[in-house]
Amino acid sequence: MAAPTELEACMETMIKVFKRYAERGSDENNLTKKELHNLLKHELPCFLATQKDPKIVDNIMSDMDGDKDDKMNFSEFVGFVAGLSAVCERLHRKQKH
Amino acid sequence: MAAPTELEACMETMIKVFKRYAERGSDENNLTKKELHNLLKHELPCFLATQKDPKIVDNIMSDMDGDKDDKMNFSEFVGFVAGLSAVCERLHRKQKH
Repeated sequence: MAAPTELEACMETMIKVFKRYAERGSDENNLTKKELHNLLKHELPCFLATQKDPKIVDNIMSDMDGDKDDKMNFSEFVGFVAGLSAVCERLHRKQKH
Repeated sequence: MAAPTELEACMETMIKVFKRYAERGSDENNLTKKELHNLLKHELPCFLATQKDPKIVDNIMSDMDGDKDDKMNFSEFVGFVAGLSAVCERLHRKQKH
């Protein structure tokens, strides 16, 4: 099998990082609020450091938790990463001009 | 500055890969259908190889092109990558059981 491309490796990494935190609790397919906080703290430290609202993790959870079960599944998580990437790309572009 | 985490590197890679193809044409912030086809062919070859519908690129473009301008901006692109990652994660889980 050919080596994965950069983008394929990215998709695998997002799944791997999600599982690393979700698998710590009893429900291996979902992040609890605490697991999400841990993930953000260790995997997106720059993002978390720039957030001043102490309720940021609660807010992300309630914004992204489409099915309102107070857990975040992979699909909701990857939607959050996509949204954050889109914000970064907009900032990149603004800095260029 | 600390080295980026795996997830931060992923987000940078998605932006970099998008730009690599978008910048080839006159509009550096959007993928045309041809640029999207090139990106899929080189960066997601396994995905493209499993798609039997010859209109797959047209279908992705019309599904993801929220603002219906027949181009794909980064936000639409990263939404597609997120959706594809969610499908992969579901398949991983099914294979485990």
